[in-house]
Amino acid sequence: MNPKPAPPSLITLTTDFGTRDAYVGSMKGVILGIRRNVAIIDLSHDLPPHRILPAAFLLREVCPRFPEGTLHVAVIDPGVGGDRRPVILEIRNRFYVGPDNGIFGLLVKTFGLERGWRIDNARLFPPAERSRTFHGRDLFAPAAAHLASGVAPASLGPEIHDPLIPDVPVCTVLADRLEGEVLWIDRFGNALTNIEDSLVQQWARGGSFRVRVAGRTLPGLSPHYGAVPIGDPLAIVSSFATLEIACNQDSAQRVLRLREATPVVLERLG
Amino acid sequence: MNPKPAPPSLITLTTDFGTRDAYVGSMKGVILGIRRNVAIIDLSHDLPPHRILPAAFLLREVCPRFPEGTLHVAVIDPGVGGDRRPVILEIRNRFYVGPDNGIFGLLVKTFGLERGWRIDNARLFPPAERSRTFHGRDLFAPAAAHLASGVAPASLGPEIHDPLIPDVPVCTVLADRLEGEVLWIDRFGNALTNIEDSLVQQWARGGSFRVRVAGRTLPGLSPHYGAVPIGDPLAIVSSFATLEIACNQDSAQRVLRLREATPVVLERLG
Amino acid sequence: MNPKPAPPSLITLTTDFGTRDAYVGSMKGVILGIRRNVAIIDLSHDLPPHRILPAAFLLREVCPRFPEGTLHVAVIDPGVGGDRRPVILEIRNRFYVGPDNGIFGLLVKTFGLERGWRIDNARLFPPAERSRTFHGRDLFAPAAAHLASGVAPASLGPEIHDPLIPDVPVCTVLADRLEGEVLWIDRFGNALTNIEDSLVQQWARGGSFRVRVAGRTLPGLSPHYGAVPIGDPLAIVSSFATLEIACNQDSAQRVLRLREATPVVLERLG
Repeated sequence: MNPKPAPPSLITLTTDFGTRDAYVGSMKGVILGIRRNVAIIDLSHDLPPHRILPAAFLLREVCPRFPEGTLHVAVIDPGVGGDRRPVILEIRNRFYVGPDNGIFGLLVKTFGLERGWRIDNARLFPPAERSRTFHGRDLFAPAAAHLASGVAPASLGPEIHDPLIPDVPVCTVLADRLEGEVLWIDRFGNALTNIEDSLVQQWARGGSFRVRVAGRTLPGLSPHYGAVPIGDPLAIVSSFATLEIACNQDSAQRVLRLREATPVVLERLG
Repeated sequence: MNPKPAPPSLITLTTDFGTRDAYVGSMKGVILGIRRNVAIIDLSHDLPPHRILPAAFLLREVCPRFPEGTLHVAVIDPGVGGDRRPVILEIRNRFYVGPDNGIFGLLVKTFGLERGWRIDNARLFPPAERSRTFHGRDLFAPAAAHLASGVAPASLGPEIHDPLIPDVPVCTVLADRLEGEVLWIDRFGNALTNIEDSLVQQWARGGSFRVRVAGRTLPGLSPHYGAVPIGDPLAIVSSFATLEIACNQDSAQRVLRLREATPVVLERLG
Repeated sequence: MNPKPAPPSLITLTTDFGTRDAYVGSMKGVILGIRRNVAIIDLSHDLPPHRILPAAFLLREVCPRFPEGTLHVAVIDPGVGGDRRPVILEIRNRFYVGPDNGIFGLLVKTFGLERGWRIDNARLFPPAERSRTFHGRDLFAPAAAHLASGVAPASLGPEIHDPLIPDVPVCTVLADRLEGEVLWIDRFGNALTNIEDSLVQQWARGGSFRVRVAGRTLPGLSPHYGAVPIGDPLAIVSSFATLEIACNQDSAQRVLRLREATPVVLERLG
């Protein structure tokens, strides 16, 4: 009597395409040209070109927050046109569409793979019509739009079971030291490390410690950015539950001259 | 018989998070994870980090143009985790969700506050689950999603009546001079000043004047950018109904070496 | 009995406004303030300021991929407030709204103009309420929103038949040489040229050729980026079916010091 209309399917986009070229718009046009009733959500188009790990971290952090059924398209694809596989991965009732080069690997490692398929349907994606440089437009966007239209993933290609998992720099845990490094520097110049807060708590066992980074010594963890004077550096638990090196209202990257792979060391006190 | 389905709620996002990190995507995921039938609109994520006034001007200019009922989430939040209040403000039948640090203050000053609430519901937002650095994800996005789901603002926390109003540089009006300054330089290098066109008209009383800026003298107001040769500077009424210093198809910032707080002086002629 | 609700109208936005000012948000607010049930899609806001050709290429490449009925608003408008015409163009059942300065000219040249109108309805767009600098907000966004609401284009102004077509640099085809140039450098530093692949095939007639650019010689067309060592330059067919100069996982712009108008020459071998 009072049919509740289905809300539009959700498709998110994550790329290293930037926002000054035709690439992102082309993917949006292809999706809506196939499936009209879709809401397209931009996650990021400014990931560093060609790099796998920053994309893998972003996708693991962001995508599981979306509702079940969401289609996540991600295209960081330096191997486009070569022999890397185009895939669809099902992870916790969300679907991931893109190249199998490790960008979905941290999701798989953390949450487990439900099922996976190689995109390989010559009728829907005629090889002669695929460009050599832009499978975001020619394979991944249309695959997601077909999924949103109700096409079964299994009809897009054969099943796969071994998506690529990227290597991540690991911490070294010693009795009196915990050694990690900077993984990513965010827009504010905050340096996010590979040192998980849960590991710090386990290692510290309630004792106090100091943090050494870039020739400076910081006194343990601050409760919030404003706990030190403006411009001063601090260590804090990041919103990803990892150790973060920051400056109050300034850029730790600039102030401490940090970069990716800069060592960050915790030393037990007393 | 023919039920018209409700269009999705509108939630806009305004931040200084940039578009290369996981922050914006996380907020979108949290919103849609709570409330599926929402349209999320990006206003800007490239506001200058940690600065209140540029955000306050943008929000006053843009948000009232949206339809009644729109939920505007804004997160420029250098004081995150400290004692600044997280708030919901109702202004002219639109709702503003973010930190109470002045970013909504020009809206309040211009349009008046209808009602306000401090976000403080320990059941919906358990303090133990709030990060120390990212209340956009942990408080403001979910608060907006709950409002979109029909939750009453009053159930999110106690009422408040005194949102923070930021200071804005004011003009000096003299008999033969009107002294203002550059407030903001836009993407094109146009310099937007704090001199309102209505003030200029009142002060000039139909007489003519010249404009002095950065050692140059400009002859009053031009009717449009193309009224001077390409590359030449001019003064014009901006789209915000304030005095703007621009160059025809070039950057006034570069040509005249302008910056924020550069003085701009009108001098009566004859 | 079971009325299928109409999906929202689609309005795309393409501008040179950047994403740090109030301009884009203002247009979105105006559109949704007039027509609530619209999905707004960002194509690009980072086109180079004031330039016609990059916008014209992007719009021709992207917009026809959207479904019929889509409203495409584009505002690269250095002549705002002067005598360039504000227009609505109908091309292949999609509608284009913006200044008549050539940005829609490649669409017209490629697909033909169905009908066109000059926006000139003093009741809907009172001249006194139009700013001198921002017709994106005061004319184009509201015109698109009115079209989305069902207003007929003919009621917005008189018909026109002669939209502006911009000049595009053309190739020189000789018996043993094909001379073109770089038109656009994308986010990755790939250089897109004005040499169409179909022209290359016709000229080469199956024979082999080499590519000279920036003092370097490249051996014909590579099948994909990964066909040369990482960092090496190559020529490839772009996703726009034109000749592209690229580097495997690096920036050809940086490595070869390319810029717009850098000559690219194909020479027949043997």
